[in-house]
Amino acid sequence: MQAQTAPPVGSPELLERLGHLCSERGLENLAERMAELYELVGPDLQDLEVALKSFPRPNSLVSHSAHHLLEVGGKRLRPLCVALASRAGSGFGPEALDLAVSVELVHNATLLHDDVVDLADARRGASTARTEYGNAASIFAGDWLLIEALRRVRRSGVPGALERLFSTVEEMIFAEALQLENRGRLDTGRKEYFEVAEGKTAALFRWAMWAGGRAGGLTESLCEALESYGRHLGVAFQVIDDLLDLTGDRSRTGKALFTDLREGQMTYPLILALERDPSLRLLIREIVKGDDGEAPAALCEEVADRLRAAGAADRCRELAQERAALAVAALDALPDSRARAALVTVAESTVSRRA
Amino acid sequence: MQAQTAPPVGSPELLERLGHLCSERGLENLAERMAELYELVGPDLQDLEVALKSFPRPNSLVSHSAHHLLEVGGKRLRPLCVALASRAGSGFGPEALDLAVSVELVHNATLLHDDVVDLADARRGASTARTEYGNAASIFAGDWLLIEALRRVRRSGVPGALERLFSTVEEMIFAEALQLENRGRLDTGRKEYFEVAEGKTAALFRWAMWAGGRAGGLTESLCEALESYGRHLGVAFQVIDDLLDLTGDRSRTGKALFTDLREGQMTYPLILALERDPSLRLLIREIVKGDDGEAPAALCEEVADRLRAAGAADRCRELAQERAALAVAALDALPDSRARAALVTVAESTVSRRA
Repeated sequence: MQAQTAPPVGSPELLERLGHLCSERGLENLAERMAELYELVGPDLQDLEVALKSFPRPNSLVSHSAHHLLEVGGKRLRPLCVALASRAGSGFGPEALDLAVSVELVHNATLLHDDVVDLADARRGASTARTEYGNAASIFAGDWLLIEALRRVRRSGVPGALERLFSTVEEMIFAEALQLENRGRLDTGRKEYFEVAEGKTAALFRWAMWAGGRAGGLTESLCEALESYGRHLGVAFQVIDDLLDLTGDRSRTGKALFTDLREGQMTYPLILALERDPSLRLLIREIVKGDDGEAPAALCEEVADRLRAAGAADRCRELAQERAALAVAALDALPDSRARAALVTVAESTVSRRA
Repeated sequence: MQAQTAPPVGSPELLERLGHLCSERGLENLAERMAELYELVGPDLQDLEVALKSFPRPNSLVSHSAHHLLEVGGKRLRPLCVALASRAGSGFGPEALDLAVSVELVHNATLLHDDVVDLADARRGASTARTEYGNAASIFAGDWLLIEALRRVRRSGVPGALERLFSTVEEMIFAEALQLENRGRLDTGRKEYFEVAEGKTAALFRWAMWAGGRAGGLTESLCEALESYGRHLGVAFQVIDDLLDLTGDRSRTGKALFTDLREGQMTYPLILALERDPSLRLLIREIVKGDDGEAPAALCEEVADRLRAAGAADRCRELAQERAALAVAALDALPDSRARAALVTVAESTVSRRA
């Protein structure tokens, strides 16, 4: 596998890249289906990019910080969920666009605050807003994006979307705090890990799917089916994300490796590896306790190798695939449509991703 | 003036203390009127304290941080505004209580984030939440209180209150950021100072008055009159607050002195003093540039003395009184009522306060 530059920004490129990845890995069928997905929601995601680019730019550190992060891009996976959920109903109208923008703003608001909490220097292959404009500006920028997101959801008028977003953000906050409390505890168990993953990641995917479906005029029970899809997809996404932090190709993910563990954060792949190979504890402790800066490459490589040898990496991919399958099963309630087929594609490509 | 312990917590105590202050300073008439004020809104403020005490307490650093700040109390001046504005109309019902709780939550949310931004160690005579539970927990706790506030405003169903709160919080964020950008700039002018004061302080007072009036069923034009009261009261309050940071009695305010200047923040009293006595610049620079920790007492005393000698302290009190008079004048539009009279008392006691 050849080293590449950081992933290109914006969703159309992401979809294209996912397509390439599929071909590369012999998943021709998935590649074709990614092309179909792009045909269906490419314009929606372009509308999203336009809306994000035309987001207000008052001359303030707050706005510079927010735009710095918004413009280095991202996977836009949450807005993609809104778009597809709305298309499983009556389509992607202005209300759904408002929700798609909002979900990306909430996601970016949490990243701005998390990067201050973690004192992170890099994100999406670029510098973090806090290294460019300071911690204070990042805190205020996160507050601003959150307010702007809530305002747009209110404006959309989609019934129930605002109330649910309040609960969702609350869940995210408490999960982030729980993650913080688990820091440095090598005995963090599966239960705690999944509690954090459900709250900090799956909750917003759930909201994206539920609210998108609602904007598309779907019934409450169909929205709940979509929400269930979002939940499983979110957990699958997080597990893969955590695996890539340990075994990923840095040139693809645009992130330093082992950042979670460096911060004392035990993730599912490590919890599994430690269960299977308790002698890993010493190495892990060395990485956690290390000085600031990146972990020694040789040490990381050894941990990654032993994690693979213990079968923990394979088991993570299996679990992600199981959750993706549950996500897909939740779609049974929906009538057949191009959007439903596209959601299947999203679930499969999420768990196949290497970056 | 005898040294006292930190101000007692909760509004009834505050009102009582304000009453004592009035008598002490020969403002017998104001003291009597404070007693009337307490008779009118004392029960409302007790409802507020009960609501704040029964605020959810999930077992998390987020909740511990939030309650740490909420429980050291505060002046509860913004909820008092909501209560009196609603009583200028049909009265203080459950909707107004929701708004009163919300405005205090928003205020506390900004304090939690500000204390992280300023790396502050003391607030209201107690340790800050961030020194007790860490910066990260304070950031998340601020996010949580903001969300809870917005949720309550939504629940209140008071028309327009949520939309206006979005704009208000946005104004507060940009004003906080502007204040941050002005840091260390000794040439900060009056214009910049008042722009910050309007945004970071007056905006929330405006909202409290407008929304309280709305909850009391008042017409749009009366709500705007109340809003105008809130704006002038907010600016007057901020000017006095900034003056007390320089010339106050530490044992009464519960705060270290010269904290603003220590952070490089030029406030109105200093801007005025510097205009009148340019030789102060050297002393001011010494305080700003000083090492961490409190500024040397002798240096602070000299600056405070020269600030008084230049007439800057008197001019600040005058300006605050002018703004209080404008606030009172805005009440002309309202029919005579006990609530209107109480609002006059609040304006007068705000500018007479010594802590």
